[in-house]
Order: sequence, then C-alpha cells, then structure tokens
Amino acid sequence: MRKPLFITLEGTEGVGKTSNMEFIKSILKEKNIDFIETREPGGTPMGEALREMLLGEDFKGMSDDTELMLMFAARAEHVAQVIKPALEKAQWVLCDRFTDATYAYQGGGRQLDVKRIEGLENWVLGDLRPDLTLLLDAPISVGRARAGKRSTPDRFEQEMDGFFNRVRDAYLSRAKAEPDRIKVIDASGDLLSVEKQISVLINSVIN
Amino acid sequence: MRKPLFITLEGTEGVGKTSNMEFIKSILKEKNIDFIETREPGGTPMGEALREMLLGEDFKGMSDDTELMLMFAARAEHVAQVIKPALEKAQWVLCDRFTDATYAYQGGGRQLDVKRIEGLENWVLGDLRPDLTLLLDAPISVGRARAGKRSTPDRFEQEMDGFFNRVRDAYLSRAKAEPDRIKVIDASGDLLSVEKQISVLINSVIN
Repeated sequence: MRKPLFITLEGTEGVGKTSNMEFIKSILKEKNIDFIETREPGGTPMGEALREMLLGEDFKGMSDDTELMLMFAARAEHVAQVIKPALEKAQWVLCDRFTDATYAYQGGGRQLDVKRIEGLENWVLGDLRPDLTLLLDAPISVGRARAGKRSTPDRFEQEMDGFFNRVRDAYLSRAKAEPDRIKVIDASGDLLSVEKQISVLINSVIN
Repeated sequence: MRKPLFITLEGTEGVGKTSNMEFIKSILKEKNIDFIETREPGGTPMGEALREMLLGEDFKGMSDDTELMLMFAARAEHVAQVIKPALEKAQWVLCDRFTDATYAYQGGGRQLDVKRIEGLENWVLGDLRPDLTLLLDAPISVGRARAGKRSTPDRFEQEMDGFFNRVRDAYLSRAKAEPDRIKVIDASGDLLSVEKQISVLINSVIN
C-alpha cells in the first residue's frame, strides 16, 4: 500500500485557495486516491466552534497568546480526531491551512516569538508534519482586490496591509527554509496558469 | 504600598470551596484589602465560553490534549485580561482554582505527562505563580457525599472515584513539593474548624 500523503494548502486572503482546493480534489479523484478534505481552524465540531470564536466579533479583544493557544487547541482536536485517524486508514488528507498559517499569521502578522510557536507545534504535533505544502502566493493588493468582492471581512481580514505583508513574508521565508516540503505557486496570474503549476506538483507526488 | 497577593483556592469536588471563598473574602474586607474574586476555568467572557465547552455535554469526546490546551487558552486570557491588570493596580487576586488544578485533574486524573503541563505553564504564565494556595483536602467519599446533594454533575464530576483519588493524590504531592506556597487544610471536619485553619493562614500573610 502506498503511504498516504498529508497535503496542506496555504496562502493569504484572496489567493484562490477555495478554487484550487477543488482543482486538487479533481486530480486526486481522477487518480482514484482515497482522501478527506478538511480545514483549519476547524475540521471538528469543537474546532469549528473555536473557529467561530477566533474569526467572529464576540471576542475581538482577545490577547495574542490566547489566540495562539486556541489555534493549537483546535489543532490538537483536529489531529487526534480527524487527521491521524485518516492517515492510519491510508486516506490522504487535504487540509486548507495548517501550522504554517500559525507561523505566518501569529508569528509574522502578530509578531509573536517564533520559538513559542515551535514549542507548541512540537507539543501538539509530535513528529506529524505535512508531506507537501502548496503556498499560493500573490502580492497582498492582488489578493485584497479579489477578496474584497466577497462577504463581510472576519477578525483577521480586518487587519491592515502591514499585517498581511508580514504574513506573506513569513510564508515565503518558511518556503525558503523548507524548499522540499513547501512549494511556492505564483497565484498572481490567471486560474489556468495556477492550475498548471499545481497539476505538475500534485502529479509528481502521486507518481 | 504593600505587594498585592495572588491567592488561589484548590480542592476536589465537595470540599467546601464556595463557602470558604466567602469566608476568605470576609477576612479581606474586614482588613480593608482591595481585591478581586475570580475563577478558573473562566474569569473572562472567553474563559466562561471555554468553561462551558470544557464542562458541558457538547464536546464530551474531546481528546485529553485538547482539554489541556483549552484550559491553558482560558488561562492565557485570564492572566492577560484580569489577573495581571489587577495585581498591577495593587489589587489582591482571589482565584477559585488555578494551575495546580491542571496538575491535579489533567496530570493526576487524566494521567497526562507532567512535563507537558510544565511546558505549557511556563509558556503561558512566564514567572507568574500564586503567592499562597489553600488546598482544601478531604477524602473523596466525604466530598462526594456533600457534592452529591447538588445539581447535575458536569463532565468532570461524572468521572469515577479512581479519577478523583488520583486528583487528590496529585494535589497532595504538589503540596509536599511546595510546602511554603501550598497549605493543606483538613476539610473533612465541620465548617468552623476549617474556617479556623484558614483564618490563621490568611492573617499570617496579611501581617
């Protein structure tokens, strides 16, 4: 039996995660790969309740440490109840955002100490890490223009460009530090050009 | 100005935390000490929402790691929004349960690795620790008999005696390891005998 892969999709607002997630799913389906699709924060009933607390308006003034702890609380539940059980059943896991997002948003955006994030990552994940991470990258202005057409912005989307530029920089420096795992995809062009890049990467891990 | 003290009250179910909290408050009021009263898990709007998730029926199957992370997420918020601001304003803080409860319930009761709890404690609290902890101690059967008269048991109260005996043992071994901070109060007798012990301890830190 082939080892199931844990693939994550990352990127800032408006880079096209939703459409490209659909595209990745279509490739896996075509290859008859058994997989589950999930997301963070969320992926479990508790995780979705925590997502609501993290993104909604009720607890806007929460401390940065609290935000980080809640992200990892949701992740602990997600890993225990969804991700590990799927991988153990040889199902691939396709996840919309994972720990790289914590490094990007809480580390880069909120400027929390990266060592504190690493400590929690090791604490919660043990040695579980994604096998492949697709980072959809585009200038913040491009993503903002696309995302702006959507519904009311959440607690993160309300942040200023400075925040998102730090998020993007943190993502890119992680990709530079882990080039084998994190693949940067230029998402500033049209959907077809993005799909072409994704197709090459996903097919390379399938074969 | 006298250094404000951070006092916590600990113990298993039915040992009389509520009545004795009232008694401690009456002593502080009599001495004109400015203090706040708070509790864990809880103490903030977010903490109370997390308390509901932790104690209620909606997420009964949560993993032990998730439970521990949520406890510390609530604690991070509590420390940042309530405890530190009060101490900075020279208010004493009187808290119904704190980190010793995590060592007792998640460490002792759930048998999670104490080193993992220590890691989170250092991560969330930095060097903040209670100045004085009153541990109300009684055999589990005594507390159970008293608590049994109350309302529907929560997610923790539904645990078996084995769980609570481990919780009590963990509390007592912490008291043995930190005798200067944690004072064990025999709570198996009548309320008056308990109040007498508490009165001596609280008055000794006031003077």
